[in-house]
Amino acid sequence: MTDAQVAAIYDLVKFAPTAMNTQPLRILLVRAGEPRERLLKHMADGNRDKTANAPLVAVLAADTDFHDHLPRTFPHFPGARDAFADDAAREQAAKFNATLQIGYFLLGVRAAGLAAGPMGGFDAEGLDREFFEGRDLKSLLVVNLGKPAENAWFDRLPRLDHADVFV
Amino acid sequence: MTDAQVAAIYDLVKFAPTAMNTQPLRILLVRAGEPRERLLKHMADGNRDKTANAPLVAVLAADTDFHDHLPRTFPHFPGARDAFADDAAREQAAKFNATLQIGYFLLGVRAAGLAAGPMGGFDAEGLDREFFEGRDLKSLLVVNLGKPAENAWFDRLPRLDHADVFV
Repeated sequence: MTDAQVAAIYDLVKFAPTAMNTQPLRILLVRAGEPRERLLKHMADGNRDKTANAPLVAVLAADTDFHDHLPRTFPHFPGARDAFADDAAREQAAKFNATLQIGYFLLGVRAAGLAAGPMGGFDAEGLDREFFEGRDLKSLLVVNLGKPAENAWFDRLPRLDHADVFV
Repeated sequence: MTDAQVAAIYDLVKFAPTAMNTQPLRILLVRAGEPRERLLKHMADGNRDKTANAPLVAVLAADTDFHDHLPRTFPHFPGARDAFADDAAREQAAKFNATLQIGYFLLGVRAAGLAAGPMGGFDAEGLDREFFEGRDLKSLLVVNLGKPAENAWFDRLPRLDHADVFV
């Protein structure tokens, strides 16, 4: 897994929509060695071994300072940056729109024929302190990336029926 | 836009991942007439006309009672339902995973050659009272659905550079 592969996947999915083109998703790629060791400390026990062994790991985070880009990314509305002046509302918007982008990203990884193993089991605050000191980034998901191994899959679990989903 | 089209799109995207196979996304399809009028009351001014004129509108919501399905959808872990006993943590998990599924859904609509116009500007609490009384559903996004009209598009807005996204 090269940085160029992940960048190409991002270029596939970056056109999918976010509110007011906010694009708050940020991606930290964690390779083997010292950075991976620092990451493992914050992973839940059940996720540690597979995170240690993944060819590449992406930490997907929301940038709560996304609004600084709006004068360039939403130029027809000069008030866009100030519309996000409230810290709590801005953090909520950052997390919601970054999570949409995580959905796009996971499909992009799989569309490229690669494996994406998303993990929610980690200490988000610890991870943010470890990697994002001094930046307003909030970790949302950690994803193992690589080529799928033979017999790497569990059986598919049941999906809900339409009657459960369409209300 | 028929219900069958939306169901087929859901069947495309339902296999994408959620934490512990929780699948908390719920979809309310709102057709023209009295249901649409009830929806319009809760839309922000700038979204009202296009919502009135869309062939079909989907309200995408998180089911905070998703854990009741886990004995069937995550059967190898009997403690799965009880792992979500805490209301606040369960609501957060419902919203995060439903938002991932919204990302999948929006790409599914567009992959089917249809137009998806997502809107965050609405009164979520009012909408929940209007349509979801007595159910623990939280509206996250309203999406106009239909066939794209000629010249329906704005110019594409700028996307962030890799140097902004990869931290």
